[in-house]
Amino acid sequence: MNEGSDRARTVLVVGSVALDDIETPLEKREMVLGGSASYSSLAAAAFAPVRLVGVVGEDFPADYRDLYRSRGLDLEGLQVVSGKTFRWGGVYEENMNRRRTLFTELNVFEHFNPELPEAYCDSTHILLANIHPGLQGHVLDQATAPAFVACDTMDLWIDIARPELLQLLPRVDLLSLNDTEAEQLTGCFNLVDAGRTILSMGPRYVVIKKGEHGAMLLSEAGLFLIPAFPVGAVVDPTGAGDTFLGALLGSIAAAEVVEERSVRRALLDATVMASFAVEEFSPYSIGRLEQDAFFARREAFRAMLTVE
Amino acid sequence: MNEGSDRARTVLVVGSVALDDIETPLEKREMVLGGSASYSSLAAAAFAPVRLVGVVGEDFPADYRDLYRSRGLDLEGLQVVSGKTFRWGGVYEENMNRRRTLFTELNVFEHFNPELPEAYCDSTHILLANIHPGLQGHVLDQATAPAFVACDTMDLWIDIARPELLQLLPRVDLLSLNDTEAEQLTGCFNLVDAGRTILSMGPRYVVIKKGEHGAMLLSEAGLFLIPAFPVGAVVDPTGAGDTFLGALLGSIAAAEVVEERSVRRALLDATVMASFAVEEFSPYSIGRLEQDAFFARREAFRAMLTVE
Repeated sequence: MNEGSDRARTVLVVGSVALDDIETPLEKREMVLGGSASYSSLAAAAFAPVRLVGVVGEDFPADYRDLYRSRGLDLEGLQVVSGKTFRWGGVYEENMNRRRTLFTELNVFEHFNPELPEAYCDSTHILLANIHPGLQGHVLDQATAPAFVACDTMDLWIDIARPELLQLLPRVDLLSLNDTEAEQLTGCFNLVDAGRTILSMGPRYVVIKKGEHGAMLLSEAGLFLIPAFPVGAVVDPTGAGDTFLGALLGSIAAAEVVEERSVRRALLDATVMASFAVEEFSPYSIGRLEQDAFFARREAFRAMLTVE
Repeated sequence: MNEGSDRARTVLVVGSVALDDIETPLEKREMVLGGSASYSSLAAAAFAPVRLVGVVGEDFPADYRDLYRSRGLDLEGLQVVSGKTFRWGGVYEENMNRRRTLFTELNVFEHFNPELPEAYCDSTHILLANIHPGLQGHVLDQATAPAFVACDTMDLWIDIARPELLQLLPRVDLLSLNDTEAEQLTGCFNLVDAGRTILSMGPRYVVIKKGEHGAMLLSEAGLFLIPAFPVGAVVDPTGAGDTFLGALLGSIAAAEVVEERSVRRALLDATVMASFAVEEFSPYSIGRLEQDAFFARREAFRAMLTVE
């Protein structure tokens, strides 16, 4: 995989688009924009041009399409098919750390087949958000010039599609997953051991997310530890991980060269972007985020990490 | 409280000295050296001369006294009284995150009255390890020239001795406590809010410890976030917090000037020292730590925190 530094960088995001019902200890919202692709693509768009691949039903609100457009997303790859959009409902308990799924209606997402529009095939940076690893591979098959591929996964795929996931990993530059998923994938309780084991499965970079406790990057160059940004009040944690990965790949796409330093810087960007995501329901806060607010928080965050 | 930069710096540590029975999922040890003062003073001694104030019974093993001496601790303040040394037994569950107390025999510690030997009264840096806040205050009453006072506490004192603790806090430069204690003391679930509330109670610096997830420093200068050092295999977490605070105050005592930068650097030292403490039972690993091993890990840790 070439760095593609001499070509125009374009981020391709493939994943779910959903309408979510979310309940927190303080509030309840219905039919808010959700899905991994929504959070990831709006976050990535702060750094680079983004092409979205997903599927919605005829009921998908025009407002949400407008939100996508307001960040300049290319929506040619957003299939509209007859039926209803993917719907998910969940409830967060007490301290927002645990969530329970109330319902999942796959609807049009059930038979989602991520075919890239011709114009998308030359995308340089590819974000395979959380869908079946077989479909993630299918997207890569269509990409003619990938420079950097970032991939998410989940407990379900580690459980029921492990062979397909293991086949995919050598084709991926960066795998992002949370601590319990890393343990599940490798059988290692220690996160550093888990991360090293995943590196041996193929990716050059592994990012292990620890929610409010930050994240860890492993690569050949070593280990990088980053705390989470201390958010004043978490309103809705939904999509924090997707926002994180979107910003991460967007920032990598915007970097001159992809090297340890730029990936670490991208983790800083990703952490800051994720902190905005949890301050509101839906990815609105990301879609409407002003650059100045982002830069100001990034500077403040850097100061919080500086020893001397 | 003056910085005392033109006087010889001496760290006074007052706290418990105990003999512990510790059970982990892998191993069981009896009568190992324990107590907050043991961990704190051995850790502080890596940075500055240390004077120990505590109490033991006639059963206190000579070996443990030798370990103290091997790090040059001044033991004039270690009272030996007739009876048995404080004993504590605990068991760690599964992932070492939760521990259960099996027994507590206060023995000679029950009537511990921390009287300073005359020669200790001019100590510049004072570490009030976890004892009743009334006794912590009594130690301060005897100190004639404190330049910097660091203080630990626990859920029990917040619960049963809150007025004494609140009286003590304005006399303290730095309070160290864990996340649940910070919440208990302030009623704030958000750690930043909790930390700011504690600052308003008197200390110039508040350190909130989050165990394996690192720590947070709050001061007038702002917020500093530091992850924990990723330890390969935790053998025994006992005393990690005491080691942390001992190294923190030792490092502050060794600094040219006490300012935000030196306190942040001290947190780095404290985090690294605590990582050694959990790799063995008892504070042996701290007592016998080679300077080179410490410096090497500190450099490695710095590299893990460096964005670019």
